[in-house]
Amino acid sequence: MTDFQASSPGEPADDGRQSTRKRTAIMEAATTAFLHHGYLGTSMDAIATAAGVSKQTVYKHFADKQHLFSAIVITTVNDASDPVYNEVRDLQDSGDIEADLRDLARRQLAVVIQPRLMQLRRLVIAEAGRFPELGRTFYEQGPGRTIAALAATFEHLAARGVLQLQDPLLAASHFNWLIMSAPLNEAMLLGRDEPLKPADLRRHADTGVRTFLAAYGRRTERFVDAWVSGDGTKDALQASEYEEPRR
Amino acid sequence: MTDFQASSPGEPADDGRQSTRKRTAIMEAATTAFLHHGYLGTSMDAIATAAGVSKQTVYKHFADKQHLFSAIVITTVNDASDPVYNEVRDLQDSGDIEADLRDLARRQLAVVIQPRLMQLRRLVIAEAGRFPELGRTFYEQGPGRTIAALAATFEHLAARGVLQLQDPLLAASHFNWLIMSAPLNEAMLLGRDEPLKPADLRRHADTGVRTFLAAYGRRTERFVDAWVSGDGTKDALQASEYEEPRR
Repeated sequence: MTDFQASSPGEPADDGRQSTRKRTAIMEAATTAFLHHGYLGTSMDAIATAAGVSKQTVYKHFADKQHLFSAIVITTVNDASDPVYNEVRDLQDSGDIEADLRDLARRQLAVVIQPRLMQLRRLVIAEAGRFPELGRTFYEQGPGRTIAALAATFEHLAARGVLQLQDPLLAASHFNWLIMSAPLNEAMLLGRDEPLKPADLRRHADTGVRTFLAAYGRRTERFVDAWVSGDGTKDALQASEYEEPRR
Repeated sequence: MTDFQASSPGEPADDGRQSTRKRTAIMEAATTAFLHHGYLGTSMDAIATAAGVSKQTVYKHFADKQHLFSAIVITTVNDASDPVYNEVRDLQDSGDIEADLRDLARRQLAVVIQPRLMQLRRLVIAEAGRFPELGRTFYEQGPGRTIAALAATFEHLAARGVLQLQDPLLAASHFNWLIMSAPLNEAMLLGRDEPLKPADLRRHADTGVRTFLAAYGRRTERFVDAWVSGDGTKDALQASEYEEPRR
């Protein structure tokens, strides 16, 4: 394959912009071909033809089909998740954790349940038995990256006393899947590729956040609020008991 | 296709046991073929040959490929989930909800992350865009059925005061995905078909149950325990505030 990586004599050396344009055209043509014909059913020849470039040009940009597919996964998943990723980091300074988690969850869900991303995910799963590296790339760039970023933010929030948790990575995984799982599994199994209806999106995100905060939210704060409005009857209970983490 | 559904003149009428044996042989051969060659890549001819029966016999048992595939999904998913399904119903009389939910979660996870079921799930997802009915069957017999059973049981447990919830179906969905999602998504995307290691299985199940109960467990009971051991200082808080569901 490396023979093809130098420019071939028949083609003029691309300048930067032309090269970028060709690379984009190849990736777009390849994405369409993969989604229609599957990974095995798509050849580098067919991709070159669809992109309107020579096969040599395809190999100049991508060493082989697996590298091309990986580049598509990385670009598609990153383009989708970069804005959410930045929002996750901003969350550590949150002054209203419930509202901010809800905003994040809605945004994150809208991004993940995009038709193109769902189709790509289905294709990756279809090929994961034969080509586990494709799935690993999707996993690491997608849920793996989001959960790692959430974990760092949740650790910061726990240090501030805004959340109560002992294992930030576990809490991040629970947050992610409380929001994502129901709509994601429906999309995967039922073949739904259209975006969620706004009301459904809000429902999944908001109920997931409520359950997450019921488990990981700061208990002390809720108790103090209650104490302020309480009447000190014999129903009264000791707050310190509830600061002890259950997880 | 209906022409094939009556026995053809060349074959003697099957007695019941022979018919059941042939049906089983067809389904086993078809499962292997589907998992190796995909849904589109498997023909009824190939299935007949692999099962050692005539094509007419295949069509006598299954009207077409989609019916055969549906029968495989229903049988495989039901065989796996029937014992768990019964355990979910028994849970409504639980005297130790944490221990019983943990047992259930471990069993449920072990059943779902079976290699054969994971391979079938991957195949169904691969074809869900083209054949959403296949995915719908898998969804309804698998997670849909489990979540519906959990919802009925959780409603009963809430009436007994063992859980606190307003929407049993939502609580059931959260329980299911808190337990399943992380290992299921890893299996799907990373192409892992081996069973979970016992320690990993327990970790996923037990941490999911803890988070579920932190959100949906009976707060009153925890408060009463605390009150009994409490000293009634100014940290004391009103219990009634916490019986108000947050979800």
